[in-house]
Amino acid sequence: MSMRHNAGNGSASSTSWVLKCTDLPQFDALLAHAERFYTDDKLHLRNLCKNSARCTGLVTIHRTAPALSSYMGIKPRTVILDYSRQRVTGETMELLFDLADAVKMTERREAMKSGVKINTTEDSPVLHHVLRLPENYPIVLQGPYNEDLPRPERSTQRNRSRTPPTETHATAEAVSPTSLKQHLKDGPSLLNFIHTVRKNIQQITEDIRSGKKRSVSGKPFDSILCVGISGGTYFGTNCVSSALQMDPAAFEASKGRKLRFVATMDPVDFHQATSDLNPSTTIVVVISKTFTDAETILNARTARSWLVENLKKEEGTKGATETNASALQMFAVTDNPIRSRQFGISKENTFPYLAICGRFSLCSPVGLLPLSLHFSYPVMCDFLKGAHDMDEHFFNAPLYDNIPVLLGLLGVWNSTFLGYSCRAVVPYTRALRDFPAYVQKLDMESNGKRVALDGTLLLHPTGEINLGEVGTTIQHSWIQLLHQGREMPVDFIGFMEPQQHFDVPGEALSHHDELMSHFFAQPDALATGKTVVEIIQEGVSEKLREHQACPGNRPSSSLLMTRLDAYAMGQLIAMYEHRTVIQGFIWGINSFDRYGADLGIAFSKKVRAQISNSRKTGASVQGFDASTGRLLEHYLAHRKEVDKIKG
Amino acid sequence: MSMRHNAGNGSASSTSWVLKCTDLPQFDALLAHAERFYTDDKLHLRNLCKNSARCTGLVTIHRTAPALSSYMGIKPRTVILDYSRQRVTGETMELLFDLADAVKMTERREAMKSGVKINTTEDSPVLHHVLRLPENYPIVLQGPYNEDLPRPERSTQRNRSRTPPTETHATAEAVSPTSLKQHLKDGPSLLNFIHTVRKNIQQITEDIRSGKKRSVSGKPFDSILCVGISGGTYFGTNCVSSALQMDPAAFEASKGRKLRFVATMDPVDFHQATSDLNPSTTIVVVISKTFTDAETILNARTARSWLVENLKKEEGTKGATETNASALQMFAVTDNPIRSRQFGISKENTFPYLAICGRFSLCSPVGLLPLSLHFSYPVMCDFLKGAHDMDEHFFNAPLYDNIPVLLGLLGVWNSTFLGYSCRAVVPYTRALRDFPAYVQKLDMESNGKRVALDGTLLLHPTGEINLGEVGTTIQHSWIQLLHQGREMPVDFIGFMEPQQHFDVPGEALSHHDELMSHFFAQPDALATGKTVVEIIQEGVSEKLREHQACPGNRPSSSLLMTRLDAYAMGQLIAMYEHRTVIQGFIWGINSFDRYGADLGIAFSKKVRAQISNSRKTGASVQGFDASTGRLLEHYLAHRKEVDKIKG
Repeated sequence: MSMRHNAGNGSASSTSWVLKCTDLPQFDALLAHAERFYTDDKLHLRNLCKNSARCTGLVTIHRTAPALSSYMGIKPRTVILDYSRQRVTGETMELLFDLADAVKMTERREAMKSGVKINTTEDSPVLHHVLRLPENYPIVLQGPYNEDLPRPERSTQRNRSRTPPTETHATAEAVSPTSLKQHLKDGPSLLNFIHTVRKNIQQITEDIRSGKKRSVSGKPFDSILCVGISGGTYFGTNCVSSALQMDPAAFEASKGRKLRFVATMDPVDFHQATSDLNPSTTIVVVISKTFTDAETILNARTARSWLVENLKKEEGTKGATETNASALQMFAVTDNPIRSRQFGISKENTFPYLAICGRFSLCSPVGLLPLSLHFSYPVMCDFLKGAHDMDEHFFNAPLYDNIPVLLGLLGVWNSTFLGYSCRAVVPYTRALRDFPAYVQKLDMESNGKRVALDGTLLLHPTGEINLGEVGTTIQHSWIQLLHQGREMPVDFIGFMEPQQHFDVPGEALSHHDELMSHFFAQPDALATGKTVVEIIQEGVSEKLREHQACPGNRPSSSLLMTRLDAYAMGQLIAMYEHRTVIQGFIWGINSFDRYGADLGIAFSKKVRAQISNSRKTGASVQGFDASTGRLLEHYLAHRKEVDKIKG
Repeated sequence: MSMRHNAGNGSASSTSWVLKCTDLPQFDALLAHAERFYTDDKLHLRNLCKNSARCTGLVTIHRTAPALSSYMGIKPRTVILDYSRQRVTGETMELLFDLADAVKMTERREAMKSGVKINTTEDSPVLHHVLRLPENYPIVLQGPYNEDLPRPERSTQRNRSRTPPTETHATAEAVSPTSLKQHLKDGPSLLNFIHTVRKNIQQITEDIRSGKKRSVSGKPFDSILCVGISGGTYFGTNCVSSALQMDPAAFEASKGRKLRFVATMDPVDFHQATSDLNPSTTIVVVISKTFTDAETILNARTARSWLVENLKKEEGTKGATETNASALQMFAVTDNPIRSRQFGISKENTFPYLAICGRFSLCSPVGLLPLSLHFSYPVMCDFLKGAHDMDEHFFNAPLYDNIPVLLGLLGVWNSTFLGYSCRAVVPYTRALRDFPAYVQKLDMESNGKRVALDGTLLLHPTGEINLGEVGTTIQHSWIQLLHQGREMPVDFIGFMEPQQHFDVPGEALSHHDELMSHFFAQPDALATGKTVVEIIQEGVSEKLREHQACPGNRPSSSLLMTRLDAYAMGQLIAMYEHRTVIQGFIWGINSFDRYGADLGIAFSKKVRAQISNSRKTGASVQGFDASTGRLLEHYLAHRKEVDKIKG
């Protein structure tokens, strides 16, 4: 592969970004190249994988840079990406890098890095990587920013040494304005703000976990109930929470503690989430950017009633009220601290949301606060370090050795040129059982778009349909379809070491080796398949031969990492964030808005009004098309019938 | 719609089944018809849904037949299928019924019903619907069956009245042979056998739940640990378990009880599943057809060690041994009772697996035993009744009013004629959070095939890629992609009543009405979309208009049911089983084998041997392609490195 694909340093010029990949000759070259893969048997993976030189070229290993690992005080880690089982040759990769050059992919990446407003529809920079930067990291911003934004005048750290321990952290007011955008004066100001927020989280985490801060009943806290909307609040935090459950350090740090989520308005949801929580030892964290979102605030009120009603039943806290429950047992993550105070949450328990695009907000207080309270701040620092490690790799590694860039280019190749509409992520550990849902949200919401940055219609679909499941589970589920039915590229994820060793004495192989046998075998089986000739040689009866044949040529990537802990989880999250962004760059779309998601919510308001009206006044259903109208009538009539029976 | 589409009564003639739908003129007619949907704006859902007559015709309501509901002692229930938001017209449906006639769909359905060996590659009938039949139901079998199958000589019920209570149920031996196929003498014999097994489950359930049967420590049981393979054992049982958790009757019946699964060889899995179980009150149910499957038996041994080691630590059970732990606290569901007895599980605690295709086995002891132990037998009887209700509907309702048939035909239309490769199931209740994974397994393993029944290659892909998520969750996740990115048909599922009423006083609408607003709005928004003209009318700036536009024309079906309880869950499971089967009938494939899934398992054996060999003797990696070989070397080298550091 040519050496010319180094990390670009081009300065951003947003006017050049209206380039659409389909307008470029490099796009046509790839289309023509892809044609061969439909017809040429030499390009079947069974044959491609026999070429040792090719396979060697299609592996890249990321080892944490020694300087970085000593700077951050962590052991170097390895991430191996083997993409030799993708339907590519060296030439394919060259053509993909050509396209990347032509669409100015590296310039776009640099623009994102330095805070250019690449989220053009919302006139906003994209700053999730900044959340992971170490203190005093030399960050340079490239503006220009809107000059009429309010600027913080007060030092964000001024409160740190003058106040008593329970108030050591700057309050929401002290650090407001709370949006990252509003701290975009220069790199150091921005980073300083982020680290002030981080330190506040560290302090409150220590106060809570040590028992210094206690509940209305005077008991130390052991549980966190997160109340927020599914999006940013739920998927990422839940996925990290389940991934670290059995990691020794995180397990130790969260022993006896519970972390639960209420992320929908489904009435069953709240009651399930709280079924094993003790209200007198539970903190409710309400996560809402505006603190006006109807669903979240409804659930926040339900949570407060749950606290107060249960506390009142206890000896010693009969005097529990909405006021003291809100003040002592409820936290907020919001950009509207006035509203959260109106709700009754204290200043010191309010943390800024930071106005990062929800699906990229895991490293902001949205994820950091509840996860720190549950797993401790040091564990979450390792997570941030892992994410930063992957950020450094993404921004600095040469393109041909750059894992997120390669994953992104392969995504574009598979979906736009080979025509795969879906892809799967298949981790070989149950600890990552919630990772596919996270990737689904991250990727489908970001890249499921219909127009380019300039608003012109795209000529091809963007955004794959992402799904996934734990490897040992799909082997007894939909692997059948992968082998003999529809094709879909897969990312297999495996680890060299298990999170914990649980081996039964006397077994030939460790549980982990058993598990990993499948991680190595499955991609091979998908690529190689099984021919009728091979089946005949096994002596299978004629009637069954064709039923047993597997065509192979199913593409996959294999990611092999050292061990799944907080650091690796940070790497993984950042890796998939960047993959998503890279694909958006190549396709020339805005991966950071989500106007499509608003439509259903707008429609629901009309339905809500109709139901409310009909329930109250018996008003007939009006203003809907025949389809919606009729079904709504059934729904409303049922309740009337039930009421009639009840008398 | 014409009335000629009544339930067929044609007798099966398997020779006629080699008909491939692509050979038929009815297939070509549908292809030509589908063309219009790509170009004709009159066929945009926005326009189709304005036609009230069309919408009325594309709704069907299933109400449990009065005779059936009084026979089974249940309240009649309603299931409404509204498919007016599918991209179909009356003509489309006519053409689909024509194709169904031409491929002899009703004859195939009848053949399945009466036990013809429609699983031709495995020479086996398909009998999951028989598991739900009431006692003495007039079932007629159509053979012929292999005459050299062993026949049960002894009456399967002879033990019922002569033995003391703890042994009232026929033992595994008494009811063996254990495979349904072996009881295919005639309908009554088969059904008699099934009901004997059911009664045994009922008896043991009562003995366990009443505390009559107790653990080694003399304590009554409160927890069930299911050990088995992901496939049949896990997905269905888990999905029913989470669906009923908050149903009042099931909730009451399972209060203080736990049901856990170990379905993979992932070492983390077992430890997570048992982390909150008390070994002296836990029954381990080992589910394995052959009782030789390596993964299951390894986990069964791990479970036994866990029982014995923990029991030994307790006062009073220091004498716990493998023998008494296996005999008193382990159950088996297997077709190999000799092996399970060798393992140490008693005859009376061994239940027949019944050799039903795994993904259709939920109503066999595989699901029935653990779910009855957890939720009680009466609750699971309601589940079986609901499934039977849907079976009766499926086998008897006219095709144009037959919900599983309509769902199946729409599946074929969307995937084969409109070209959608994926579809989603989106329930508007968190109780159904595990239902999409169940459907994924059921459908993708059944219909992801490459050849027709006669072994000739299919000319089109079969089997959609199925995904899904709770409605309130996708609204903040991948709904963006549905509106503005790739298209995918959706089945929305909603309920007229919530499982439980949890309303906050003073709120305008109940939580359930709030939730259901979205159920009604989302399909409408997907179908209608939002045009640039409408956006201009809202005064949106030019720059943003195209970014906010949603093309609409996204198809969906809405299923509205009375309430989610055990009965409804039985209906739902059977509905999706039959949908899957119908699509297989139309496509002319065998939905009941899964040869493709075996390939990866075969490949893993080679990897396993290599890892074992290399670990023991340091043997170098050999016999793999360059791709697998290299990655395996990395894996093996890592452990060596770790060992070196450890010294």
